[in-house]
Amino acid sequence: MHFPGSHILSVSQFERSDVDRIFDVADGMRPYAHRERMTKVLDGAILGNMFFEPSTRTRVSFGCAFNLLGGEVRETTDIKASSLTKGESLYDTGRVMSGYSDIIVMRHPQAGSVAEFSRASRVPVLNAGDGPNEHPSQALLDLYTIKKELMSRDQGIDGMHIAMIGDLKHGRTVHSLSQLVSLYNKIRFTLISPKELSMPEEIVEELRKRGHQVIETEDMEHGLEGNDIVYLTRIQEERFATKMEADIYRGRFRLNQAIYTRYCRPNTVIMHPLPRDSREEANELDNDLNQHPSLAIFRQTDNGVLVRMALFALTLDVVNQVEKTAREVNWYTERRF
Amino acid sequence: MHFPGSHILSVSQFERSDVDRIFDVADGMRPYAHRERMTKVLDGAILGNMFFEPSTRTRVSFGCAFNLLGGEVRETTDIKASSLTKGESLYDTGRVMSGYSDIIVMRHPQAGSVAEFSRASRVPVLNAGDGPNEHPSQALLDLYTIKKELMSRDQGIDGMHIAMIGDLKHGRTVHSLSQLVSLYNKIRFTLISPKELSMPEEIVEELRKRGHQVIETEDMEHGLEGNDIVYLTRIQEERFATKMEADIYRGRFRLNQAIYTRYCRPNTVIMHPLPRDSREEANELDNDLNQHPSLAIFRQTDNGVLVRMALFALTLDVVNQVEKTAREVNWYTERRF
Amino acid sequence: MHFPGSHILSVSQFERSDVDRIFDVADGMRPYAHRERMTKVLDGAILGNMFFEPSTRTRVSFGCAFNLLGGEVRETTDIKASSLTKGESLYDTGRVMSGYSDIIVMRHPQAGSVAEFSRASRVPVLNAGDGPNEHPSQALLDLYTIKKELMSRDQGIDGMHIAMIGDLKHGRTVHSLSQLVSLYNKIRFTLISPKELSMPEEIVEELRKRGHQVIETEDMEHGLEGNDIVYLTRIQEERFATKMEADIYRGRFRLNQAIYTRYCRPNTVIMHPLPRDSREEANELDNDLNQHPSLAIFRQTDNGVLVRMALFALTLDVVNQVEKTAREVNWYTERRF
Repeated sequence: MHFPGSHILSVSQFERSDVDRIFDVADGMRPYAHRERMTKVLDGAILGNMFFEPSTRTRVSFGCAFNLLGGEVRETTDIKASSLTKGESLYDTGRVMSGYSDIIVMRHPQAGSVAEFSRASRVPVLNAGDGPNEHPSQALLDLYTIKKELMSRDQGIDGMHIAMIGDLKHGRTVHSLSQLVSLYNKIRFTLISPKELSMPEEIVEELRKRGHQVIETEDMEHGLEGNDIVYLTRIQEERFATKMEADIYRGRFRLNQAIYTRYCRPNTVIMHPLPRDSREEANELDNDLNQHPSLAIFRQTDNGVLVRMALFALTLDVVNQVEKTAREVNWYTERRF
Repeated sequence: MHFPGSHILSVSQFERSDVDRIFDVADGMRPYAHRERMTKVLDGAILGNMFFEPSTRTRVSFGCAFNLLGGEVRETTDIKASSLTKGESLYDTGRVMSGYSDIIVMRHPQAGSVAEFSRASRVPVLNAGDGPNEHPSQALLDLYTIKKELMSRDQGIDGMHIAMIGDLKHGRTVHSLSQLVSLYNKIRFTLISPKELSMPEEIVEELRKRGHQVIETEDMEHGLEGNDIVYLTRIQEERFATKMEADIYRGRFRLNQAIYTRYCRPNTVIMHPLPRDSREEANELDNDLNQHPSLAIFRQTDNGVLVRMALFALTLDVVNQVEKTAREVNWYTERRF
Repeated sequence: MHFPGSHILSVSQFERSDVDRIFDVADGMRPYAHRERMTKVLDGAILGNMFFEPSTRTRVSFGCAFNLLGGEVRETTDIKASSLTKGESLYDTGRVMSGYSDIIVMRHPQAGSVAEFSRASRVPVLNAGDGPNEHPSQALLDLYTIKKELMSRDQGIDGMHIAMIGDLKHGRTVHSLSQLVSLYNKIRFTLISPKELSMPEEIVEELRKRGHQVIETEDMEHGLEGNDIVYLTRIQEERFATKMEADIYRGRFRLNQAIYTRYCRPNTVIMHPLPRDSREEANELDNDLNQHPSLAIFRQTDNGVLVRMALFALTLDVVNQVEKTAREVNWYTERRF
């Protein structure tokens, strides 16, 4: 695809070469995100960071990524504070807000809303999650993390074995990620979930059609075996009709040190889109794995900044200018790793 | 008036020459707002963008206008998150907050609140709407749009015919706009509303006293005839005692393609302060006019950025320095017009 | 203490020499906060300004302090909009958010929460209030104000007489301030409160152990006598079980012009952490003192910016570089003092 000026709405926009391009640019962002250097390439540019659904990490991650490139961020964090509650159409909102900024990031609880908004927008729109539908930057940062983790084990993505665990029905991250992974070759997907929360049939079929192996199971112990990656998810309580209904499934599949040691291949990468639910009754990914070297969950969020910087640099067409405006960082940047 | 350091609280502060001055400065902001060039004239300055009432477009428009001049923005978006709920007076809030920034934009649900706040402020305060009372930057952007639209038809504001339609009782935009228009000569105002939502008597009298013609009517079809501008408004539901009371009037006056073609003079400019209520039961300005060249509603919001940039540049006294700090824009700026 | 890279969680971290160092740096920030000059020393740095409890003044004060040093600010203002409501631990939130910014300011309703968060953070964390527990930057700005006010009366902190009045049980500001003041010599504390809202016993004991004189009383008139400083506080309604319970105490201790003139020594400095509750039923500090030269409450909030700039400059280790990036301010900065 041609990135400059494009909307990023769905992982289905990407071919494998596009993903490679994004990851190459993300690699180049590392010294800036790690504060070894700074750049002002987007000095004067404005991001409209529009979140019409609760979010901390994604919103701040996008905002910081834009700041790290030198740009300014204007924000909306509350649907109640918005004209949408006064009966305004997404078309009007899109047309108006796109007159205020150079690029827009948008999250909205309704599937398809961001695409509808983008049709009226005169500037690029990046989908930061439209309800249960898509969350392309999350899928990209997940895949980027998979690539980096496997690379450090001298492996590639092609041929890998990945297990996805939990609420595979409502989790938009596993939907988008499996679509993206399917661009690669000969993947083995093990989908572990209660039957009622299994991966939508059309996604499973698509994966098989593209030549991948898909195993669906409710047996976590067995399903964990022989994977390179295990990807856990939270029960998406907010997508259920009632909290009670969500409670039925909460805590059903849990990974902790004991289970990991017993069933997982050594060095299996542990991933989670976060937030993980650490309450007693859920605890899908136990804190006793926090110091485990294969726990990649915080590398995922760190990588999110790189991938989002890459998306901004590509859609605003400044990739080749990042270094020109770079300079040394003059404040304390030692990190406690 | 002398702009540097002044509060902008009410359209009644302005003489015609002041309006002309603001519009001249707004014209000069066009290349910066359209991203043909960028300026850092307010690099280092801080705007306190204080919204104690829901707003997206006005808040973001002011914030972006300040960013476009190179300044930083600190924001408050929620009255619940504020000290006002702990019994703090507007005087204290004004005195304290004015120690944090170089200029303040404020919206508050209570008439007169912004003026009260400004009396304690040591920095300029711009009124972004104080309940049903005033919203001067909206009136200015409306009049600026009228001027530009008529100019493209080789007309001026003097002698124009304007119809205002809808909730003329609660709509602060039509109050402020008519006051501002009254600075010009020989205007014909046609005020179309249910009797219960008619323009306040003192405003009508003032318009007549200044030599303008005012027609009040409930007959929309007839009222639409012979105008240069038709200005529609939303039923201000939040100003009614109950939603039910608002519902009585919702959808009573609607403009769509068929009505426009039948009753309006060709090229009549269509305006609306936005948000328009596009729900079935309201729909005061139909989407079937979205592609109409005389629909100026999105040019209004675009112009809002120019006018707000002008107000900042004038009150902070940097008009003559804008170009000095200007340079080329280096990112993708092609707009989909 | 060694400031670069340190968390600022509690006043108990400081020795007297640390306080002196902070105040020296704060003094140097004056020309920048007063807009006589500007600096870009933190150009490119990002503050994560995370408020999980309502706050306007503290949040904006920290944000502006960072902007005044040239840095960018990303913000969280609502606990409902956060992953904490999805069961995320403070550890996870801390670890993730610290990957997004160079420094974090955090407020949270729960005592100890900020310290817990900081243990996972890889960047410095400044405590902006953890429930009833600590609020170190407030204590520092209060003490800084005391120092400046007494200095203008040719006095020092050692040997001063200070009265603290109101809800001394829940007011974290008086807890932190008295701890900080106790680093100095031979202070006389007069603690005026209803018995039920008196200063926690362990704090009183600590003050006595360090050689200070502590008088506890319910008699305000008598307690006001012979002080250099009177420090009033608001009833911390949000810390009571019910509003009714808070109402019992509201308005019990009030300072106004008449009482001040009758009982206080001339020139006694009047302080309050703000917001003061100006509702009829509370009104702990009357507006009839607003023009009194000894009313230091707004000098307190102004000083807050200086102290917070100092904390940022010290923890990010840029104190010696502030002037290097300084330049003249080019916009209107006349203040109405």
